[in-house]
Amino acid sequence: MTTIEKRDRRYVEALCRRYRRWGAWGADDERGALNFITPEVLVRTGRIVSCALPFDEQSPHSGRFGGRHNPMHIMVQDGGDIAFGAQDHLNELRFTEDAVAMPLHCGTHWNALAHIFHQRRMYGGHGVEYVTSKGAARNGIEKVADGIAGRGVLLDMPGYFGVEWMQPGQAITSEDLAGAAREQAVEVGSGDIVLIRTGHIAKARAEGTWGSYEAGDAPGLGVDSVHWICENEVAAVCADTGEAEVRPNDTDEVFQPLQLILLVNAGIQLGGIFDLENLARVCAEESRYEFLFVAPPSPLIGAVASPAHPLAFF
Amino acid sequence: MTTIEKRDRRYVEALCRRYRRWGAWGADDERGALNFITPEVLVRTGRIVSCALPFDEQSPHSGRFGGRHNPMHIMVQDGGDIAFGAQDHLNELRFTEDAVAMPLHCGTHWNALAHIFHQRRMYGGHGVEYVTSKGAARNGIEKVADGIAGRGVLLDMPGYFGVEWMQPGQAITSEDLAGAAREQAVEVGSGDIVLIRTGHIAKARAEGTWGSYEAGDAPGLGVDSVHWICENEVAAVCADTGEAEVRPNDTDEVFQPLQLILLVNAGIQLGGIFDLENLARVCAEESRYEFLFVAPPSPLIGAVASPAHPLAFF
Amino acid sequence: MTTIEKRDRRYVEALCRRYRRWGAWGADDERGALNFITPEVLVRTGRIVSCALPFDEQSPHSGRFGGRHNPMHIMVQDGGDIAFGAQDHLNELRFTEDAVAMPLHCGTHWNALAHIFHQRRMYGGHGVEYVTSKGAARNGIEKVADGIAGRGVLLDMPGYFGVEWMQPGQAITSEDLAGAAREQAVEVGSGDIVLIRTGHIAKARAEGTWGSYEAGDAPGLGVDSVHWICENEVAAVCADTGEAEVRPNDTDEVFQPLQLILLVNAGIQLGGIFDLENLARVCAEESRYEFLFVAPPSPLIGAVASPAHPLAFF
Amino acid sequence: MTTIEKRDRRYVEALCRRYRRWGAWGADDERGALNFITPEVLVRTGRIVSCALPFDEQSPHSGRFGGRHNPMHIMVQDGGDIAFGAQDHLNELRFTEDAVAMPLHCGTHWNALAHIFHQRRMYGGHGVEYVTSKGAARNGIEKVADGIAGRGVLLDMPGYFGVEWMQPGQAITSEDLAGAAREQAVEVGSGDIVLIRTGHIAKARAEGTWGSYEAGDAPGLGVDSVHWICENEVAAVCADTGEAEVRPNDTDEVFQPLQLILLVNAGIQLGGIFDLENLARVCAEESRYEFLFVAPPSPLIGAVASPAHPLAFF
Repeated sequence: MTTIEKRDRRYVEALCRRYRRWGAWGADDERGALNFITPEVLVRTGRIVSCALPFDEQSPHSGRFGGRHNPMHIMVQDGGDIAFGAQDHLNELRFTEDAVAMPLHCGTHWNALAHIFHQRRMYGGHGVEYVTSKGAARNGIEKVADGIAGRGVLLDMPGYFGVEWMQPGQAITSEDLAGAAREQAVEVGSGDIVLIRTGHIAKARAEGTWGSYEAGDAPGLGVDSVHWICENEVAAVCADTGEAEVRPNDTDEVFQPLQLILLVNAGIQLGGIFDLENLARVCAEESRYEFLFVAPPSPLIGAVASPAHPLAFF
Repeated sequence: MTTIEKRDRRYVEALCRRYRRWGAWGADDERGALNFITPEVLVRTGRIVSCALPFDEQSPHSGRFGGRHNPMHIMVQDGGDIAFGAQDHLNELRFTEDAVAMPLHCGTHWNALAHIFHQRRMYGGHGVEYVTSKGAARNGIEKVADGIAGRGVLLDMPGYFGVEWMQPGQAITSEDLAGAAREQAVEVGSGDIVLIRTGHIAKARAEGTWGSYEAGDAPGLGVDSVHWICENEVAAVCADTGEAEVRPNDTDEVFQPLQLILLVNAGIQLGGIFDLENLARVCAEESRYEFLFVAPPSPLIGAVASPAHPLAFF
Repeated sequence: MTTIEKRDRRYVEALCRRYRRWGAWGADDERGALNFITPEVLVRTGRIVSCALPFDEQSPHSGRFGGRHNPMHIMVQDGGDIAFGAQDHLNELRFTEDAVAMPLHCGTHWNALAHIFHQRRMYGGHGVEYVTSKGAARNGIEKVADGIAGRGVLLDMPGYFGVEWMQPGQAITSEDLAGAAREQAVEVGSGDIVLIRTGHIAKARAEGTWGSYEAGDAPGLGVDSVHWICENEVAAVCADTGEAEVRPNDTDEVFQPLQLILLVNAGIQLGGIFDLENLARVCAEESRYEFLFVAPPSPLIGAVASPAHPLAFF
Repeated sequence: MTTIEKRDRRYVEALCRRYRRWGAWGADDERGALNFITPEVLVRTGRIVSCALPFDEQSPHSGRFGGRHNPMHIMVQDGGDIAFGAQDHLNELRFTEDAVAMPLHCGTHWNALAHIFHQRRMYGGHGVEYVTSKGAARNGIEKVADGIAGRGVLLDMPGYFGVEWMQPGQAITSEDLAGAAREQAVEVGSGDIVLIRTGHIAKARAEGTWGSYEAGDAPGLGVDSVHWICENEVAAVCADTGEAEVRPNDTDEVFQPLQLILLVNAGIQLGGIFDLENLARVCAEESRYEFLFVAPPSPLIGAVASPAHPLAFF
């Protein structure tokens, strides 16, 4: 540490002017120095694709299903406060500040292994007494928060079926999954994270409304898809529907059977509301359905779900 | 899509038993199928290090500074509800559900370019009227939500200075940054994300209390660090202190001068409360201070900050 | 209901000027027409009637209008936690604990005098700079929190009109108000709190749905009702609709003209979503339309509205 | 203050049994001692005194105790938004809008009968399974929301003891209560709401800090006060401390014994954080310690507590 003298305001202002980059990447630029990033050969092309739905009041939830409402964004200090002098006690700098309140399933999310119980047991056989008002003492999302990152494989089911999007109620089988992988010339193996595109978000966009997206009928994985998923030792499965499995379920006797088989028993993370439209387009352009997939949950201690901002690296 | 018949409960239960992996990775396992992941040569060693502080009520905020309190985690359905029969109308499956309310700066976070104003202008010259109670209409965090991913470089300043941690009030200069990079045998260049370890979190842990971590004195970047940062075309800077710059600031005339120079003018993302302790240990073990760094903000529309769960890939 | 013509902006502005009371009780006054109240001896039988709608997720708001959602009730400790031993460190006693998050207009509520601006002025002539992200520095609800208690008078308009409930869009005039009071044999005078029943809640109940109750068409006070209200020196007006005035408004040139005339200029508290069904029944049984009316807002510092639990004492 | 010995668990349990009123007003009763209230003609002068502490971020809670933080007030639309044109689509009128998030015990509040359990039973003998994440299905605050209004009697204990305020740890006995009533020349009888002033808020104000007000030592009702309270058929008891009873409790074997005896068994509403300073002054001025007391909880369905804005009418 060099001994340094106290600087004055003019010095700071000179530095502000010297390093001002407003307009350096066009007048409309809002990404600043991130424009410098040109991802390297660590990953092959450096192309990055986001698989998250924006978190805002236009999200698909209405609060009708289990109290899942859209994220509420709250400004604690805003430009009006600055204009009216609320921060005039500060030298030069003014700031804005905000907060959010959101159900943890309300957008692109992973379920924790503590999210689902079968005969009063969650993954590992732990009982209901491990999830109290304080959160999950076992299988909380923080236990896997750094773990959902690895090789990702997109299976573009509408592409395989030759349709724009699958229809609500259409169930995907093990044979379908194997067929799609084959046609896409991609192998799926131990530790892969499999992303299932059904086109359900594309359909909602085409129709201009979320409609019953949050809890209604949807295409998705059927009971018979679990063989392919488990035998291939898939680490995690996510989809562009609410909870990845077909609705109505293809059994009347068990509600959301895949949550029981895959999450509670096989310990497979399940993710919902992933926006896979851009990803499918890029995979097609790159003729490549595998990528580095980084989608860490937040380390929310004891949470039974977490929003995520998943990125695919090509 | 193969035509498939409706399955019954016994079929689902058989699948549950068949694919049950409880105990497959030890009786205490809470990561499930993620154990299958063995990151490949996409990244060199596959070793992944989290740089996030856990989000919980033990976080460093008390609400005294600008209303920044710790995250509040809320259970909407828990094990008690299941035990008392609240979900007995569902076939077989039972679920837990939760929500969170949190200030967006309260843990490991990135500031949006809309977070700071200088002479009523934010990055790009936009005025205060662009941040209202509805959020930021310019430079909101969603504009860079998929952008904070690329080559990361850790500069371990206590390692360079030969101390356990830097002292509150100690300022880091451009010369210090260049010296640390040189000693660590790492080059810093255009587009890099630079992580500055001061040891401030290690100090809090050693003392067993956050004390004034949230808003008090801290080591960090001094005004004279901006030359090295800007001339090297660094894309983003984060640190293990509240807001990366030294407190008290090394000027009395400007509050938080680096926010003005780096964020408002040079458009450089600034991140705070990154936990860099494990990262420093791993960098030393690997003798390698560069890595793929993936730390996307959440796509919270109009937000002026976002929590993040940053991962370093070796 | 007299047939009435649509009024224009100049008409509303003339009424604003005519009934403006800024300064009538001193330049610093923030209590408005509540200054008229001089509580009397009114309680005779001890019969108490609640005029609040229950606060729960069955309330009329959906979040579509201005972010007004229903109250969210959150359990912090519940019976499940007790059953699972979370409080076993306590001797003998076990407790439950909860919290609420609610928009302040979402149920039975009073508007503060800081709720409405006309030509950038609120009651007393204070500008928009007095309401920042920190709340209202002038005319916040706490300024009248102990003031909304005194003689209450119910005007049962459907009773007067001989209908079950008024129709959406039907406007009440000064003549109607005078007529109803006359028929009910009740005098209205200085300091009275006037409760207007339109039957709009009865209609929603009969139809089994809130429908567009929160922000759609509604019966209510028309522009021409203000003469009777102001000339009688009424202290506060509330109704069983969202905001007491007829929707669509009976002028196309001014949105919610009564808020401008009565609240901004005459300083009269306006309350909405009061459930007056039981009250109307009891008034009829008692043949008495006056009562001690106690409906204090909460002393939420700087708030621009407050929920209330109004009680009428006979 | 009589010197009193520490009581044991059996003593408390005997009192619980002795004053148990489960079923006294029918097996389904959820209103407890409020059944004693028969409101009278009490209002004489019209003088009104508020007994609420302001609800704001200066309230006594820090979040350290059971997650009870101060109320958070959130502006949804404010003057800055109006100034920046966010509502320019509206004709003439501009509005502000807000919301609040608050623990229900965080300010002046009543406990519901569902707030406390003893041997897994609450008032009326209902089990823990009646309070789930959805709230209290029995004894929720809405069951008494219109009931806490009637004759109020202030017992000014520091006045009786001839001190400015009682000291933390000082316990009030039945004899003290009887003595204070006698000296104040007021009778206490069936259905009365008794307000106990200890001066604990006056002490905090004199010291300029809430200190450990929220959960630390406090003066208050001792175990031996319950005889006077129950035998007089008091309907509700509130005080100017957190939860009305002395801290540390005058038994080591039972935490908060009065909550068990009075609330769980005798069905007596208990209120805390009532600001009784003005009330004591007015009672002295009027030489009258009885008044009409109106302090309705909010009708928050299933809540186990509620903020209230209590008013005393002279």
